[in-house]
Amino acid sequence: MKVAIIGMGSVGRGLIEMIATKDLGMIVTGIADSKSGIINEHGIDLQKALVRKKETGLCGDPKIKAMEVVTNAKYDVLVEVSPTNAETGEPAISYMKTAMQRKKHVVTSNKGPIALAYKKLISLAKKNGVELRHEATVAGAIPVFHTIEHGLAGNEIYAIYGILNGTCNYILTRMADEGLTYEQALLEAREMGYAEADPTYDVQGIDAAIKLVILANTVWGNGVTLDDVDRTGINLLTPDAIRLAEEEDCTIRLIAEADRRTDLLRVSPRIIRKNHPLVVNGTLNAITIVTDMARDITLIGRGAGSVETASAIIGDLLFIATCYDRRS
Amino acid sequence: MKVAIIGMGSVGRGLIEMIATKDLGMIVTGIADSKSGIINEHGIDLQKALVRKKETGLCGDPKIKAMEVVTNAKYDVLVEVSPTNAETGEPAISYMKTAMQRKKHVVTSNKGPIALAYKKLISLAKKNGVELRHEATVAGAIPVFHTIEHGLAGNEIYAIYGILNGTCNYILTRMADEGLTYEQALLEAREMGYAEADPTYDVQGIDAAIKLVILANTVWGNGVTLDDVDRTGINLLTPDAIRLAEEEDCTIRLIAEADRRTDLLRVSPRIIRKNHPLVVNGTLNAITIVTDMARDITLIGRGAGSVETASAIIGDLLFIATCYDRRS
Repeated sequence: MKVAIIGMGSVGRGLIEMIATKDLGMIVTGIADSKSGIINEHGIDLQKALVRKKETGLCGDPKIKAMEVVTNAKYDVLVEVSPTNAETGEPAISYMKTAMQRKKHVVTSNKGPIALAYKKLISLAKKNGVELRHEATVAGAIPVFHTIEHGLAGNEIYAIYGILNGTCNYILTRMADEGLTYEQALLEAREMGYAEADPTYDVQGIDAAIKLVILANTVWGNGVTLDDVDRTGINLLTPDAIRLAEEEDCTIRLIAEADRRTDLLRVSPRIIRKNHPLVVNGTLNAITIVTDMARDITLIGRGAGSVETASAIIGDLLFIATCYDRRS
Repeated sequence: MKVAIIGMGSVGRGLIEMIATKDLGMIVTGIADSKSGIINEHGIDLQKALVRKKETGLCGDPKIKAMEVVTNAKYDVLVEVSPTNAETGEPAISYMKTAMQRKKHVVTSNKGPIALAYKKLISLAKKNGVELRHEATVAGAIPVFHTIEHGLAGNEIYAIYGILNGTCNYILTRMADEGLTYEQALLEAREMGYAEADPTYDVQGIDAAIKLVILANTVWGNGVTLDDVDRTGINLLTPDAIRLAEEEDCTIRLIAEADRRTDLLRVSPRIIRKNHPLVVNGTLNAITIVTDMARDITLIGRGAGSVETASAIIGDLLFIATCYDRRS
């Protein structure tokens, strides 16, 4: 299978590293970052590209732009892992549309386009008879969409509850375990590299809300947007509130909830029994899927990380390879 | 898709009920229990068959035997859900072989044949270009094989840890929560319908060991058997042992472990930290899959139940429908 990769941040580099070192039956015929690109229909030397990126900051030739790779490279699947733009989804949306119009499959970890334009993009995929897969957009290494699409096929999905932001979960875990204040725990999260200098996006629940929108639109196709999410962050939580919960064998977690039966769409700190499967510690993510036949299925795993995210992307790539292989 | 169903115990009846009430795009053209059978290429009236079974104990005509349904009914997939035989795997193995020789796919919840003859059966499936799927043989509603095969595709699976027997987990949960003795908890499990009159198969870890063998053979194809499993039951555990673990924020669970790196294959009571994702309560099952890219992924859900098991079977049926649909 021939793959072109747009974006060479930590996810793109992790993916290229895995394709270079594991025998996955893939060759990479195009790579682009924001400033350069490289095209080789016989397969790019991936180790060389990684070294070049590290030494020069460019993966290839500055004269070759990303859209040129999308338009001209010979590939079966476009992997779109460029930096996300939560306002417009561009330029990623244009890359995806161009690839699908070329009858190429698309696999992405890019939350912006999927949160903003899923309906349009998926109908374009269907129209062109290609796959659009985005396992990596929600909960990192946890194969939640594979599980819902295949493992739970035939089930009606009533509701989804998730711990979808590792930064918040780390902060809440440390507040509960060590009695730290929110500020102390946030500082620690920064030192550990789990929180950005500006943590707004995480601690105010925006990241979790975007993932919830992606889940709801993918599972129910109900076209909800970020504005539809009733959202409360964790930044006002006090150690006292958590201590009171702990005294009742409960704890507080930032829970993203989507319930089809009540049209609930909410991200907020919730008191939850400590022995509930959803209660995970540190930066872990967890998702409980409530269904009619299987009842509650909970998935737990790493929500972030370069190689963990590459795992989700590779799962999508190999799924396309398998199904279209059986086809022929 | 045309389906024939062999076996009309609680799993078979649950499956038929779901196919009858949900719009899954399937018609059932053959059904057999141990004493009768029914064939109708245009689709059997499932509600009638369920009523007949309930009132007479027979699903169809006593003159029609199960093998006749396997051999003569017109179907795309044979669903083999007859009572398991852990010693010989028969007659289920013969049913499956016959169907695959007819170039029909096979989906089963029957542990005996998969634990005893997986290698032979899967090669026969490959030889005939059909699918042999057995999601329902391990951990009920939890789609563990879908997750490993697709969600985690491309990952190297290093090890698998599981709580695979709900009866033992219920007993251990009650011993820990209420300080009950093993005998008291077992009695309660019987009253709740979670344990058989003869609980040997569950409490001595035989059931968990069979599921572990199925997992290892499916994931690594290493042809292990029940005799290869180092097995210890829970029947000698004392409330003291559990209390000591609880004092250290740990508990005791019957853990099935398969580690490819050390060739470990063991079912035994283990002391495990209470906040480990694998620690679930009551009759729940849980499986942690240790991989190279995704790292640890844990799945939690119901390990038994008529409709829960039907969910796993339907997931397999719809996977076959999807992939062979994309094929054509």
